[in-house]
Amino acid sequence: MDLRHILPATAFLLGTAAGALAEDPAPRARHIVLFLVDDLGWQDASLPFHAERTPFNDRYRTPHLERLASEGMVLRHGYASAPVCTPTRTAIHTGQSPARSHITYWTLYADRDQTGPWKRSEGERLVAPDWRKEGLGPDDPTLARLLAQAGFWTIHVGKAHLGGIGSPGEDPRALGFQVNVAGHAPGGPGSFLGLHQFRANGRQGKLGASVWDVPGLEDYHDHDVYLTEALALEACREVREAARAGKRVFLSFAPYAVHAPIMANAKYLANYPDLHPTEAAYATMVETVDHALGALLATLEAEGILDETLFVYTSDNGGLSAHARGGERHSHNAPLRSGKGSAYEGGVRVPWVVRWPGQVEPGSASDEPVISHDLYPTLLAAAGLAAPEGHAVDGRDLRPVLRGEGPLDVRPLVWHMPHFWGVHGPGIQPYSAVRMGSLKLLFFQGSQRLELFDVVRDPGEQTNLAQERPEDLRRLAGVLAAELERRGAQPPLLRVGEAPAVPARGVLEVLADQERGR
Amino acid sequence: MDLRHILPATAFLLGTAAGALAEDPAPRARHIVLFLVDDLGWQDASLPFHAERTPFNDRYRTPHLERLASEGMVLRHGYASAPVCTPTRTAIHTGQSPARSHITYWTLYADRDQTGPWKRSEGERLVAPDWRKEGLGPDDPTLARLLAQAGFWTIHVGKAHLGGIGSPGEDPRALGFQVNVAGHAPGGPGSFLGLHQFRANGRQGKLGASVWDVPGLEDYHDHDVYLTEALALEACREVREAARAGKRVFLSFAPYAVHAPIMANAKYLANYPDLHPTEAAYATMVETVDHALGALLATLEAEGILDETLFVYTSDNGGLSAHARGGERHSHNAPLRSGKGSAYEGGVRVPWVVRWPGQVEPGSASDEPVISHDLYPTLLAAAGLAAPEGHAVDGRDLRPVLRGEGPLDVRPLVWHMPHFWGVHGPGIQPYSAVRMGSLKLLFFQGSQRLELFDVVRDPGEQTNLAQERPEDLRRLAGVLAAELERRGAQPPLLRVGEAPAVPARGVLEVLADQERGR
Repeated sequence: MDLRHILPATAFLLGTAAGALAEDPAPRARHIVLFLVDDLGWQDASLPFHAERTPFNDRYRTPHLERLASEGMVLRHGYASAPVCTPTRTAIHTGQSPARSHITYWTLYADRDQTGPWKRSEGERLVAPDWRKEGLGPDDPTLARLLAQAGFWTIHVGKAHLGGIGSPGEDPRALGFQVNVAGHAPGGPGSFLGLHQFRANGRQGKLGASVWDVPGLEDYHDHDVYLTEALALEACREVREAARAGKRVFLSFAPYAVHAPIMANAKYLANYPDLHPTEAAYATMVETVDHALGALLATLEAEGILDETLFVYTSDNGGLSAHARGGERHSHNAPLRSGKGSAYEGGVRVPWVVRWPGQVEPGSASDEPVISHDLYPTLLAAAGLAAPEGHAVDGRDLRPVLRGEGPLDVRPLVWHMPHFWGVHGPGIQPYSAVRMGSLKLLFFQGSQRLELFDVVRDPGEQTNLAQERPEDLRRLAGVLAAELERRGAQPPLLRVGEAPAVPARGVLEVLADQERGR
Repeated sequence: MDLRHILPATAFLLGTAAGALAEDPAPRARHIVLFLVDDLGWQDASLPFHAERTPFNDRYRTPHLERLASEGMVLRHGYASAPVCTPTRTAIHTGQSPARSHITYWTLYADRDQTGPWKRSEGERLVAPDWRKEGLGPDDPTLARLLAQAGFWTIHVGKAHLGGIGSPGEDPRALGFQVNVAGHAPGGPGSFLGLHQFRANGRQGKLGASVWDVPGLEDYHDHDVYLTEALALEACREVREAARAGKRVFLSFAPYAVHAPIMANAKYLANYPDLHPTEAAYATMVETVDHALGALLATLEAEGILDETLFVYTSDNGGLSAHARGGERHSHNAPLRSGKGSAYEGGVRVPWVVRWPGQVEPGSASDEPVISHDLYPTLLAAAGLAAPEGHAVDGRDLRPVLRGEGPLDVRPLVWHMPHFWGVHGPGIQPYSAVRMGSLKLLFFQGSQRLELFDVVRDPGEQTNLAQERPEDLRRLAGVLAAELERRGAQPPLLRVGEAPAVPARGVLEVLADQERGR
C-alpha cells in the first residue's frame, strides 16, 4: 500500500472543510459512539422492534440493549442502506446512498468483482455494472475525517470493510480514523476464536484463505478469547485512554459478530439448550455482542462521559437466513420476509436504538422510517458540523425525530443493488426499491417484476398490491425512477446473445409495457 | 505504605550480592518461568503423578500440562513446603523452609494473626507462636531480587501473597519484581469474574470484604473475562514485550485459580455434565489454568525463546478438600489422604513438572522427593547464581535430578506448621513432620500423637507403622528434632490454665514418654 494515502488528506480538508455551524444553538454531543453490529437481524434481540413481542425476543438475550433502549429511543422502522455490508457501511460514512456512491456491493479486492462466479444472475442474463469496487478512499469526506478535523479522537475497532485490498481505503486510517484496531478490507473473520488466532486455517478442515485473518490482535492469539470480547477490551481501553486525556471521542465499533462463520461462544451455550446447534451458536454470538455493548457502556459510565455521548446502535444489513443457519431457510427474521441479500424487509430492516441524554426521551420510540445514511448528517449536526459544500448527501438530519418533534415530511428511502448475492432466496436478485410512507415498491430488473407492499400493515410483504393499486404503483415507480436518475444510479447490464451488454430496462419502461399489455 | 521500601534495596544488593558462579561451566537458563498454581491438588490433572492412572486423571483436562511433561520431567514425589499458601510461596523465594523463616502460616494483615478466632486448636489448648506475620520484606534476598540484579527482567503476574497488608512486602515490587500485575497481600480473589470487577461484593449475596478486590485489572472490569484469562493475557503481553526488547525474563505467574471461591468458567462447563456442580466448576478452573499454560507456552514459542527457558510448573499446597467442595470431604486428592491444611500427603504433595531443553530429558520422570524451597537454589544455579553468603538455605540444587544423574543422597524434607487451619479434617492440626527416604514421621503437638508411614508403599497413609517399627520411629524423631532445632523452629505454645503459655513439648519428649509408658 502507498503509505502517503494513510496520512490525513490535508489538502482536501483545508480545501473543502466542513463548516462549523457557528450559529446553531443546538446542544452538541461531546462524544459519539457508532455501535454497528454485523448482519444483526431485526429480531436478533430480546428488545422488540416489531409492534408486538415475538418468539425471537424470548430466544435472544440482550439486556444491555434493553437498557440502552430504556434510556433512549427505539426506531422501529430503521433500515440499512443496503442488504449487504459494504454499501451500508460506506453510506454511513458519506451520507450517500449506494445508488449515488456506486458502492453497490460488498468489496474485497479493489480490482475484482466479488459477485465472482455468480456475477450473472441465473437465467436472467444480467451482469453487474462497473461499480466502485475499491470502496472509499482518501478523497471522501468521511464522517471520521470531518470529526477528526473538528477535534475528535477518531477510533475504529473491529470490522472495517470500507475499501478493497490494494486501495488506500482498506486501512481505516486512510479514511479519517486516527486509531484502527483489527479493521481491514475483508468483511468477515477467519475465525472468532483466539485459539485459532482468528484465522480461517485455525478452524477444523482448513476452511478459507489467509485473506480473512483478522489483523492486529496478536495479543489474543492462542488465548481462549472470543474475537468480539477482544475487540470490546481494546475499544474500552482506547476510550478510557482518550477520555482520561480529555479528548472528544468518536468510536466506530463493529464487533465482526454476528457475521459468518457462525461459531459459538461456548460460555453462553448453556443458555440455549433447546435450539438447533447452529441457532444456539448464533444466539451466543448475539449475547456476546450484547456483553460488548455492556462493557462499553460501563466504561463510558466509569469515565464519567456516558451522558455526554450520543450512542447509536444499529446493524449493516438484515440477518443471515438464506444459508448457513439452522432450521427453515428464510425464516430467521420473521415476521419479516427473507434476510441478508434480499430486497425484502428481512434484508434491510434492522435494529436501531439511539441514546442521547438531554435530547432523546428515555424509553421513547418512533415509527419514522430512517436509513443508515441518515447517520452522516445527523452525527455531523450533533457535533456542530455540516457536510462540506458540494458533497451531495442523501441522508436526512434525524435530530427532529430523535427529539420527538414529530415526523419528517414524507420522503423516499431508496435502495439500489444491481447485483446478485449468489445465494438463492426470496428477493435475492438485482433490484431497486423505494419506500414512501407506508408503501414500498420493489423492482427486480432480471425478471422485470414490480411488487408493491404496505409494509406498515403487511411487514412480511405477503400481499403484493401491484395489481390492486395501479396509481400507487405508477406514483412510486415515478419516484423511484426520478431518484435513481437524480442519484446517477447505474443499472445492471443485460447481455444480449454475444452482443455487448446494454443497460437493463428501467422501472418506467417496464411499467409502461405492463400497462400496455394489461 | 512507605514508598522507600518499594525501591530496590540497593544497599543490601551491593553489600551481600549473590556471587556469579564464574567457573561454573554448566549451561544456563536464559529465561525462567515459575508457573505456580494455587491450591492445585496432586490429582488435579489429566497428567498422572501417581504410579498409575486415576479416575481424576480422566476427569480433568490439562492437555498443555501433558505437553509440558512430554517435553520435560514429571517429579512424582514433589512437595509443597507447607499445606497452606504463604509459607510455600515465601519458601520458594528465599530457599528457607517455614521452620526457619518463621513464616509458618498464611498472611493477610502484617499485624494480625489470621488464625483468628480459631487460633486455639479446639480442646488442645495450643496457640500459635509469635510467627512472622508480615511475610517477606525488602531485606530478604529473594529469587526475584537476585535475578533482577543479574540482569533479568522480573515480572510477577497474579497472586502474590508474600507480605502482609501494611508491610512493604505486600507489593511484589518491594521483593525484587520490576513488574507487578494484580499481586498484593491477600491470597484469594474477591471474584474470578470481570463482570464482578474481580470483587467479592460483585458476587451474589455480597460475600466478603473489599480487601479481596484484585488490584490493577481495571481494563477487564465489566467484561465477561475470567480472572485467570486476564492474567494470562497480561503475562503474555509482558513476556512478549520483554522478549522483543531482548531482555532475560523471569516470570512468576500465579493464576489465582484454583483457589476459593470456586467459580465456574462457564465456557468449559459443558465438558463436565455428570459432575456435582461444584466439582464441575472446579474442573473448569483447572481447565482454565491449563489454557493459561497453553497461551504462555505459545507466546514463548512465538517469540522464539521457549527452548531457552527453564519452565517450572507446580502448586503451593494440596487441593482443597475439607470444605467448599462437592462430594465426600477429604476425598479430592485420593489416593492421597486429606487435603489443603493437612499434614498428610493430600496437604503437601503437589504437581511438579520441569521443562528445560538440553538439560531435562523429554518425557522423563523422577521419584526423588523434592520440595518447593529447592527451587531457590535450583533456579539461582540455573541462572549462574548462588545465594548470598550468610543466607542459610534449606533447599537443594535439583539440577542433578533434572539431568537424570541419579538420586540425591537421602535427606530430610521438613514441614512445620504450629497453627490450626481452622477447618476440621484428617491431619489438620498444628504439626511438624519429616520425610526421609520412603518414610514420613508426623508429630501433632496438640494430641502429642506420632505417626509413621511408608509413603512410597502406602501413599494414602492408611497404615501407621509407629508401633511396628520403633527404631525407624526413634530415628526419624531424632532427625525431626535436630532439623527443627537447627532451623530454629518455633513450637506452638501450650496454655496452662490462666498461666502464661509455654512451648509445647517436642517430639523427643513425647516419644520418650510413650516409650516409658509402653
